[in-house]
Parts: sequence; structure tokens; C-alpha cells
Amino acid sequence: MSSNHKKIEPRRLKGFQDYMPDVMEIRSGFQAAIRLQAKLAGFREIGTPALEFAETLLGQGSDESDKQVYRFEDQGGRKVALRFDLTIPFARFVAENQGVLVFPFKRLQIGDVWRGENTQKGRYREFCQCDLDIIGVDSANADVEVLSCIYRILCGFDLGGFTMRLGNRVLLSALLVKAFPGIDGAGETAALIALDKIDKIGGEAVAQLLAKIHCATLDSAKSLLVCVQAKDSSGGTDTAVLESYLSGNESGLAELQRMKTILAIMSAVAASAIGGKVRLDMSIARGLAYYTGVVYETTLDGLPGFGSISSGGRYNNLVERFVNRSLPGVGGSIGLDRLLAGLDELGKLGAVKSDMVFIAVATEDALESAASLAGVLRAAGVACDIGMTPGKVGNQFKHADRLGCQLVVTLGTSEVQTDTYNLKNMKTGVEARGLPRLGILEQLKSENN
Amino acid sequence: MSSNHKKIEPRRLKGFQDYMPDVMEIRSGFQAAIRLQAKLAGFREIGTPALEFAETLLGQGSDESDKQVYRFEDQGGRKVALRFDLTIPFARFVAENQGVLVFPFKRLQIGDVWRGENTQKGRYREFCQCDLDIIGVDSANADVEVLSCIYRILCGFDLGGFTMRLGNRVLLSALLVKAFPGIDGAGETAALIALDKIDKIGGEAVAQLLAKIHCATLDSAKSLLVCVQAKDSSGGTDTAVLESYLSGNESGLAELQRMKTILAIMSAVAASAIGGKVRLDMSIARGLAYYTGVVYETTLDGLPGFGSISSGGRYNNLVERFVNRSLPGVGGSIGLDRLLAGLDELGKLGAVKSDMVFIAVATEDALESAASLAGVLRAAGVACDIGMTPGKVGNQFKHADRLGCQLVVTLGTSEVQTDTYNLKNMKTGVEARGLPRLGILEQLKSENN
Repeated sequence: MSSNHKKIEPRRLKGFQDYMPDVMEIRSGFQAAIRLQAKLAGFREIGTPALEFAETLLGQGSDESDKQVYRFEDQGGRKVALRFDLTIPFARFVAENQGVLVFPFKRLQIGDVWRGENTQKGRYREFCQCDLDIIGVDSANADVEVLSCIYRILCGFDLGGFTMRLGNRVLLSALLVKAFPGIDGAGETAALIALDKIDKIGGEAVAQLLAKIHCATLDSAKSLLVCVQAKDSSGGTDTAVLESYLSGNESGLAELQRMKTILAIMSAVAASAIGGKVRLDMSIARGLAYYTGVVYETTLDGLPGFGSISSGGRYNNLVERFVNRSLPGVGGSIGLDRLLAGLDELGKLGAVKSDMVFIAVATEDALESAASLAGVLRAAGVACDIGMTPGKVGNQFKHADRLGCQLVVTLGTSEVQTDTYNLKNMKTGVEARGLPRLGILEQLKSENN
Repeated sequence: MSSNHKKIEPRRLKGFQDYMPDVMEIRSGFQAAIRLQAKLAGFREIGTPALEFAETLLGQGSDESDKQVYRFEDQGGRKVALRFDLTIPFARFVAENQGVLVFPFKRLQIGDVWRGENTQKGRYREFCQCDLDIIGVDSANADVEVLSCIYRILCGFDLGGFTMRLGNRVLLSALLVKAFPGIDGAGETAALIALDKIDKIGGEAVAQLLAKIHCATLDSAKSLLVCVQAKDSSGGTDTAVLESYLSGNESGLAELQRMKTILAIMSAVAASAIGGKVRLDMSIARGLAYYTGVVYETTLDGLPGFGSISSGGRYNNLVERFVNRSLPGVGGSIGLDRLLAGLDELGKLGAVKSDMVFIAVATEDALESAASLAGVLRAAGVACDIGMTPGKVGNQFKHADRLGCQLVVTLGTSEVQTDTYNLKNMKTGVEARGLPRLGILEQLKSENN
């Protein structure tokens, strides 16, 4: 512990962040806003451990994503892993606690997740996810309840416009079967991966990829892309084109009807709570294998290349990994740290303005009185800081200024004796003098108006 | 993913908890209350990673505590570890960010920590700590600012009385030097460990332990214990006895003067914000080696054997592990999960009462209208849930009941056509009929009064 010891270099692991106070205030504020909106919509918050048995977490995404999982043997020789998302742990939670949960169960979970992936701007190895899910029912309204709550949450933040693009795995499969009769599972996976690249590589290149799939031709691939990329006047995928393309495929048409219901309600939500757009976009496929219905991604209008800040979809079979019970689910995740990185890039993460009062302590004998005044102000809901070491008022004023405090009360022997105080506005230089203790609170109200 | 696959047993790691909604609501509420009180007192929240380089974390407590640290090699071959407290990462944070922090820096941090220790009731391998610290100054008022903020936070919870016992390492060393002239570092450590056991094994047994220390005799040990255990009328250690015992030891007497200042202000705080007691208790030594001044522990009055729910103290040399700069600090930690376990044991963790409204959807054609009504209620700050699948209103009523919703609105074809609604109180059976949309909000106000 002595200063002669060899120093340890103070450094973080690559891809891991310290959160400074201004950012943390916004981050905690966002979390509080998410909790409030989720509660208003009947979602209930749960928590699960950061560490799980490795077998619980692994084998759900690709080999690629398994490689990113932080895993090790604990002191008891158990193979454990840090969660890489909140969805798989939630499936474990539901399976383990199914006896006490009331289904359909609407869940909120806010927590950090860890992925040992390559770091890049806005991508970290530790980041916070905020997940909303409804489990135990497969219905359009469950889909809507998740999507609309996330939409409303995002409207509450000053994002400068966002777009929620909805796709649908069942519809996409129906389109693929229509386009490439006889397509198998491997072909479907390859097609989803190809379609997911439309934004990046363009329709022409995707058609070339699709044409390589068993049962596909360049012509059938191109006609599928015409259908998927046909837009209506809102800028979303044209459902009339989808309907005629799917003609005769009853299950596909039924899922299209469900998507129309979802879109109608979400359009009404978007009309009543302005801040974002909602669109059907059949090119949204999502990487993860477990989706079985609606999927969505959300992008910031001001940062087209930044990637998704919120995504998710319906997963009807996740709990079946653990138990013989069908518990269909739908969920969405807000990437809080991605969102903050996006806001930073948009120049929307400024310093938080302080309205804190500073109590300078001029003399040792004023310390108790100053502490008592701080207690009175704080109990009245006024944030205040206080000089740590009595004396040297000039230093305390400088410190108050660096903290962003505009209003300063100085306590010395005479203030303690008279029980009256002066409140100085450091910006205007104006000083309210001879205030009684509670008069400070009155004066603060007028200063802050 | 198919249901024919071998099932994975859904299970948590030993010592790790799932947080169910009722507990989580209290837990998140406590965290919000801590954030508010900390902000009012000028503390600013930061965040640090869960994972740190192992060398940053290890070697700070005992070998015993190092053994409890979860550590492993990451994908890049780095030796990493999960944080076991928030104090050592904070020292790293301060050292790494000293160029941008304004000192004295008042810090709040709320986060999970991990210890692979033996599990027992109220002790987990993953638990949440809420830490308040002031770094960059060594003064009585800094000590008070941490202690008083934690005291006020604890008063805000319904703990049924708590006691904050303050000790002091400098004072204790001065007493030991007086009692056992010539005592060395090893002797002092042994003495601190022995004194920490007074509550468990009693003064007589502690005297026997102390007498074994180099330079000590049974007589000098007994006279030290008389001094340490002398109580004044408040039930705290008698400072007059300490003063006469320390006669001639100037640094010891100066530290006693500082403790008197701290105690005087904390007594005033305790008098103005009732909920707990504050006492000097010279037998509080605290296990960790890094403390260099005031130390404290807090116990629930209703659970004498439960252990500490909040503890901490002054540590003047922690940052020196990393940099050649003196940044003295003082801090306290609230063990949120310990606190919740204590409240559970006290029978104070009841179910959270719901005032949520339920919207039952009788017919498919009422779904859009029901979703719109839900949006209106939520935008007005009324929590509401909605039937997931139109039809079967009886099932939806049962679900509303299981959720604890007393008030139900049912929407069917006729409600949509007339745009008027009935609000039924399921407990009283009374139904307000023919309400216009906004009339529901009015009616809710009267139902909730």
C-alpha cells in the first residue's frame, strides 16, 4: 500500500468503458424513463444473474456468437459463462419459475451483457440492454404491446427522428417457398442471410446470391426482390404486392393479415406519439435463428450507417430448450449504450446543467451550522454541496464554480451568531443579504425562475 | 430448437438469484431513492466495468478474499477478474481519470459485485452494492458528508430502526500504542482482529487474545478493554475516558477531537431525520487493511445477529497503488441485497399493490380501439394492461384478477360504435356505465380516492 511499491498501471480492458457523471446522469435517466413507460404498459421488471451455467447460454446463436461468450470454470469447477444477451437467460428464468409466473407474463429487464467481439465505434464488450417481452401467448396484440411500448420509450428521448422497420419471418418463408418451390432449410437460411444484405450491397448483388440457392434461378430471385422491394406511398413494403405474390398460400396470407393489424395499430400509435416512423420492410430478416414471426429493427434518421438501436421479434420456441411446454414469446431490446453512442455522434450529449447550491464554510466554528443548513436544503429537495475544509473561502468559491454551482451561501462566525445568511449569484454578482434560514429556500425559488 | 432435442435443465448457479417482480420493484425503488438522495447531497453517479485486469483487483484484501474472486483468461489471453467490490475499481477509475475529475470528487456508484464465497442466508455470490465516496480531501466534513448521506438514505426505507456504529483506526492505533508500548505492525493487526470479536466472544476472551501479543500483558489488555468498552449515557464509547487514556498522545487526541466533531454533526442529523441511531463504538475495527481513519458499520435493530447492511470508512492511500499522488478518500457502501434479505426476514417485503387498469377486448374489431384507449390512459400516467387475444372475456377477467387489477374496461363492437365505455370495479362489483373516453380518466381518479 505504501507509495514505494511498484505501481499498477490504471487501465481498463479494451472494449470496456468508464461512465463519467454527465453520461451516467443521462444513462440513469433513460433507465428510469424506460422503467416508467414499461410499468404504465403493465410490464414488470425482473432480474437474472450475470453468470449462468455455460450450457444454458451456448448453442443458441451461431458458432461465431458462441466464440464471443466469456466463459470459464468457477472455483467449484462448474463451467459458467457471462450472459451475452438477456433473452436466453429469460427463457431459463421462465422455464425455472413457470410455476409462480402468471402467463401471459410481460417482462422488463435492464442489465449489462458481455460479448468478446471486435470493438469498434459504438460497439463495446460490455453494454446495457433494456428488454421488453411478453411470454405465454402468440397474438398480434402481444406483438403490438411490445412494439408500441418500445416506440413510446424511444419517443421520450430526443433522438431527432427514428424509424422502426418491421419484417416477418413467416411471411419471408412463405415468399421464399413461392419464389423457389422446393427450397429446403439450408436454402432458406442462405436466403435470409442474403436478404439481410440488401441495404449494404444492393438488390442486384442480393439477386446473384439468391440465384445460387438450390431451386432458385436468377429470374425467380429477381422477381422475389421486386416483390420485397416494392414500396407503397408510405415508403414501406407494398402489402398489395405481397398479397398478390402470395396468392394461394393460405398461411402466408393469414400472417400478412396479422401484419396488417400490427401495422394499423402501430401507425395509430405513431400518429399519437410523434417522434418516429413505423414501416413494413420485408428485407428485415435479423440474424438470430430463433425468430418465428414479426421481427424489427430501429435506426436513427440522423445516422443512417450507425446500425440498429433497438431490435427483436417473435420467438415461439425458446423455452422448449428447457421444458416440454409451449410458451411463445415476443420481445424487443433497446441497446442503451448504442443509443448513447448514437446521441454522442449526433452531438446531443451535452453537459448536464447544475442547479446545485454551494455552502462555503468560512470558519471552523461554522461547520455544524453549515451541515445543518445543508440538511435543511436537501430535505426540501434542493441539491447542495458544501465546503469540505473550513477556511479559505476563495478556494471553495473556485470549487463551486468548477462544479457549475451559481448560487453560494457563505457561513462564518457572524452568520452562525445572527442566524441570517447571504445568498450570492456568482453569475450576476447579485447578493441577497440577511436572509433567515428558511428565507434561503424562498430566495432560491425566485433565483431559479 | 425442436422440442425433441434433449432438454437442458433450467437452473441457476448456487448463490445466484432470480429477482421476481415484487422484489425487483422494491429493489429498483430503493436504487432510485439512493440516486435521489445522493444527487441532493452533490454526489455524482459513475459506472465502471464488471471485468477488470486481474492485477487491478487482486492483492487488496487477504489471500482469503483473493480466493473468492472470479478470474479467468479472456479470448485475448488477458488475465481478467470480475469485481468483488466497487472500491478498488473506483481507485483505478480515479487514477485513470484524474485529469478530468474535479477534486474533491463526490461519487455514487450502484452495481453488482461477485464473490465466490460460501453461501448462507442473506449472503449471495452476486449482489448489488451502492457506494458513496468523497475522494481528494481528508477532513471531518468529508467523513460527515458520506455518513450523513447514507444515514438519510437508510431513514427513507422502512427498516424499523438501525444503528450506525462509528469507530476509528487512528484512534484505535493510538490506544494500542498507549496500552502496549512498543507494539509492532503485526501486533496491531492481531489486536484489530481480536477487538473485532468483542460482540461475538466477549471482552474476557478478547483480553486473553490481546495478552498474547508482543508487548502486551493481561493487565494492560484488560485496562484497554475497560477503556474501549466504557459507555456514556448515549450508549456509545465514553469519549471522556478515551481522552484521559490518551493523555499525552497528541495525534491521538487530535483524532479524538475530529471524531467528536463528526459525532456532534451526526447526532444533529439523527435528531432531524429520525430512523436510526449513531454511536461511537471503539470496538469497530473492520476487516479490510486499507482503512486509515473513521470506520463504520450499520445493523438493523430488529435483527441483531444479521450483520452489517452498510459499512465503510476512510482510506487515504488506495489510489497510490496506481499513481504517485495523494488522493485521500472516505466511503460507505449499502449492501442492497443484504438489506432486502433483512427486510424479508423482518417480514417487511409484502406484495406490491397494483392500481393497474385492465382493458378486456371482447371482439376482434375492437382491438385497434382498445389499443388506442390503452395509449390514452398510459399517456395520462395510468398503468394499464390489455387482453392479448380478443374474445373470451371471462378468461381476460380471470387474468386481470390474477394480476391484481381491480378496474376493468371491456371493449366490444358496441363500445367502438358508440365510443362510450363501462368501467367495472371487480372488488365492489360497481360499474360506471356510458363513460366517454376521457370520462374514464375522471372516473379512475374517484375510484382511486
